[in-house]
Amino acid sequence: MKALHKNNLYCWSLFDEARNIDFHSYLWVREGGNIAFDPLPLTAHDREHLNSLGDLHAIIISNSDHVRHAEHLAAETGAEIWGPAAEKESFPIACARWLSEGKALVDGLDLYSLSGSKTAGELAFVIEKDTLITGDLIRAHKGGSLCMLPDAKLKDIVKAKESVVRLASIGGIHAILPGDGWPVFRDGDKVLSELIEVATK
Amino acid sequence: MKALHKNNLYCWSLFDEARNIDFHSYLWVREGGNIAFDPLPLTAHDREHLNSLGDLHAIIISNSDHVRHAEHLAAETGAEIWGPAAEKESFPIACARWLSEGKALVDGLDLYSLSGSKTAGELAFVIEKDTLITGDLIRAHKGGSLCMLPDAKLKDIVKAKESVVRLASIGGIHAILPGDGWPVFRDGDKVLSELIEVATK
Repeated sequence: MKALHKNNLYCWSLFDEARNIDFHSYLWVREGGNIAFDPLPLTAHDREHLNSLGDLHAIIISNSDHVRHAEHLAAETGAEIWGPAAEKESFPIACARWLSEGKALVDGLDLYSLSGSKTAGELAFVIEKDTLITGDLIRAHKGGSLCMLPDAKLKDIVKAKESVVRLASIGGIHAILPGDGWPVFRDGDKVLSELIEVATK
Repeated sequence: MKALHKNNLYCWSLFDEARNIDFHSYLWVREGGNIAFDPLPLTAHDREHLNSLGDLHAIIISNSDHVRHAEHLAAETGAEIWGPAAEKESFPIACARWLSEGKALVDGLDLYSLSGSKTAGELAFVIEKDTLITGDLIRAHKGGSLCMLPDAKLKDIVKAKESVVRLASIGGIHAILPGDGWPVFRDGDKVLSELIEVATK
């Protein structure tokens, strides 16, 4: 796994030929058990690396299109899977816990529930107040800037934009780690405000 | 291949298990024939993508440790291989042209010859005044910041640091695209000056 901007965050990636971007999964190493977000398949090397960093406590899925390799990793590690509460009725895999918006789900992890994206209640995550992890709604098809899912994929464009504006208003964000496309490691607030300018004009 | 910060630059990548970083190769799409830098093996998909963007005119190698898949790609595309002049006597593959420091090797491409790195005359490249491509001396093991090769790998630490200071003094650099590790897509000058602060203290 690759080191990110902080010593307790890692990622592993898979190139997607359909979109010509990397998909990413993130690992947060923390006391009380590590947490993985939207896990892709891992190589044996990355699997060993993940093991070496401590027990995996939970696997959090941002939305039903990012289930990826979650069940497999849960079976191997004993980690619980937590999914978005708004998709509870139709989620493709079993979840031990259903997540809604709220502060401090565990110490240092705030949850945001988004509206209007391609799935109901897509989750976004703020780790330790400075790092935003996004699933599908906010992404990065070019290096150094963010974009939204194309309008044609959104359930409700107005609500989706309102959700992005909300995330951009959190403040104090240094890094944005999207599930799809290049991470932004610096000046997260500024890059989010540029996204808002483009998205709302 | 993945889009970068500008529409005429692309990259493809390979995860290196020994260092837990991605290695990158870059493609510059330009009139007069495209240029690839330090090319890794390409998947069939990326090879087709590369073909679709026009003829490959040249493959430039920053140093003898980054020869990678150059010969193979040259044989397939008919592109010339250009290598660092300071390594001419011992370079592992044949080169059609040997490159030294100079402005405008082709329109929009400036070359810098570095000292003290692990190989003599390692090349760095500035494309269109705003994008710095580095081989080995400047790299990124953490997201959002740069580092130098470890001292133990440098032939001459003082000269290597002087070379980095020189690159940092070019000015107008937005992006730094290292052969090894996370690219920096914004505020390149600032990130380079931070590297200098760490490297020279």
